[in-house]
Amino acid sequence: MSDYTEKREWHPVEEREKGLVEKLRGITKHAYEKAPAMKKRFDEAGFHPSQIKRIEDIEKIPIITRDEYIKMQRENPPFGGFLTVPYETLKRIYVHPGPQYETLADADIKHAQKVLWKVGAKRGDIVINAVAYHFVPAGLLVDDILTSMGITVVPTGFGNTDLQVQIMYDLKATLFAGFPLFFMSVIKRAEELGYNFKRDFHIKRALALGSSPVRRSLEEDYGIDTREIYAYLPVGIPACECEEKSGMHIEEDFIVEIVDPATGKQLPCGEVGELVVTTTFNDILPRIRFGSGDLSSLTDEPCPCGRTSYRIPKILGRVGEAVKVRDYS
Amino acid sequence: MSDYTEKREWHPVEEREKGLVEKLRGITKHAYEKAPAMKKRFDEAGFHPSQIKRIEDIEKIPIITRDEYIKMQRENPPFGGFLTVPYETLKRIYVHPGPQYETLADADIKHAQKVLWKVGAKRGDIVINAVAYHFVPAGLLVDDILTSMGITVVPTGFGNTDLQVQIMYDLKATLFAGFPLFFMSVIKRAEELGYNFKRDFHIKRALALGSSPVRRSLEEDYGIDTREIYAYLPVGIPACECEEKSGMHIEEDFIVEIVDPATGKQLPCGEVGELVVTTTFNDILPRIRFGSGDLSSLTDEPCPCGRTSYRIPKILGRVGEAVKVRDYS
Repeated sequence: MSDYTEKREWHPVEEREKGLVEKLRGITKHAYEKAPAMKKRFDEAGFHPSQIKRIEDIEKIPIITRDEYIKMQRENPPFGGFLTVPYETLKRIYVHPGPQYETLADADIKHAQKVLWKVGAKRGDIVINAVAYHFVPAGLLVDDILTSMGITVVPTGFGNTDLQVQIMYDLKATLFAGFPLFFMSVIKRAEELGYNFKRDFHIKRALALGSSPVRRSLEEDYGIDTREIYAYLPVGIPACECEEKSGMHIEEDFIVEIVDPATGKQLPCGEVGELVVTTTFNDILPRIRFGSGDLSSLTDEPCPCGRTSYRIPKILGRVGEAVKVRDYS
Repeated sequence: MSDYTEKREWHPVEEREKGLVEKLRGITKHAYEKAPAMKKRFDEAGFHPSQIKRIEDIEKIPIITRDEYIKMQRENPPFGGFLTVPYETLKRIYVHPGPQYETLADADIKHAQKVLWKVGAKRGDIVINAVAYHFVPAGLLVDDILTSMGITVVPTGFGNTDLQVQIMYDLKATLFAGFPLFFMSVIKRAEELGYNFKRDFHIKRALALGSSPVRRSLEEDYGIDTREIYAYLPVGIPACECEEKSGMHIEEDFIVEIVDPATGKQLPCGEVGELVVTTTFNDILPRIRFGSGDLSSLTDEPCPCGRTSYRIPKILGRVGEAVKVRDYS
């Protein structure tokens, strides 16, 4: 345990929830006072931050779906009344399709550092960052986290497979950040060019955005340790796999719920529904019960690593898509 | 005069050159001691840093052409012996076509802040950064400079014209960074969509990478104040226009020479040749007499702004291209 790992990841659940209640009450009060759209929504739902006494009280807060968020931004551009500071003071403004305007707080970066450290990014790594930097926050998020940890980043973005092969080889890159399918296409291209990937390259680890059918092959055929991370970009990186690779642990200071997409009601562990995320630390653009549109479930089964957080077994699809929920176990 | 502007830009030339000699001797000594490729080149040319007594002595140092640099990197990857630190300690590694590996020092960012401040980027601006972030350093250089100045950046990169129009409009963007031709294509698209650019948009200023035939139209037809900056990316931003728009002033702590591409000999003011750039502050990857491959000339005619630096009237093309040198005045 050092650098970015914290003792409290092994704390009893009750202790975590006690701390979270206080943080949730604080951010909710802040949002109520500083973000006009939040005040309006809270008032309309008959909710007041003083009602937060236990972690379960989070259900009294209205969920914000992505569609609602985009609609409110269009009616009141650019941030729909959710921002607590003038937008000219933000570091960057990102644009998701929609368009949906987003920003990241320094606190998002600080929390995400712990995630990337846990999944194996260490000082001395040379990281191929094959995540897009343009418009969306993904590439710059990974870049900001790694460079702030003193790790060397090669900002390649997506595509340009031949050049990616040469760069990985020349720079003796040690870590790949991006989509497993794209990483596999780079490896296959390296093989076409006559390289033996395992022998000639130094990449031993991948930060995998999203689960993928090629992950097993990366691990077994190429000896790459892949760690899945869940990046829901408005909130940073709320979950990642530990060394046991048995589902993604919810990070400290995040609250992740699974709700029935039709009713918005919380579902118990094991049932599949929409991931709803709350961060308790973003005071610039408070993210309280933001619907991710992603389908998953929660588990509270003990993890062999000893961390006591809930875990997301995996992402099963998007709300509205037909998914075979029986397959997820 | 405030923030990033310095009194010494108005100093007598002799005073500047006196300071530059000391800095040049310092960086040359550092490169000789720490960058094996530099030591070898210096020794082969019979040059020793102690020979730097006057600014003219820079001509004793061998010029490095881009082709040579790429060749030396291929023979001794990744940095060809020019780096003075282990490459795992760099913040980022960029890749130019070639591939040519590059990095930027914090000192490059610090010096470039002054440039962007002088050409009009101020806190409170919302900047559309339409410069590519992937592989090459351009987009991230502009991003690093602006965000470190507390200016809000929208990292759009190049392309996606319709989305650029909508973002500029929604965010009331005040400044565009990128190529004038691309900016004009965004304006034209806005007009096609029914906007009146001058009335409906808030962009009043552009940081123009490269001179362009559409610049006059941006200024006269759309009321955009365009300022040309010379970004030779291995060294950051060595020159920019002042408010007089009468050629780009060479920044303090940079040495820019014009040489005959055939002989490598320095040319006097007014004559066209290759731009050779030295930075006196980059101790990670010393850039001493790096041939840019760009053709230009120098002028020492006084500028009405009162700054005493040499100026580059404009970039006339690339070494090896046929250029009509008579047109450059």
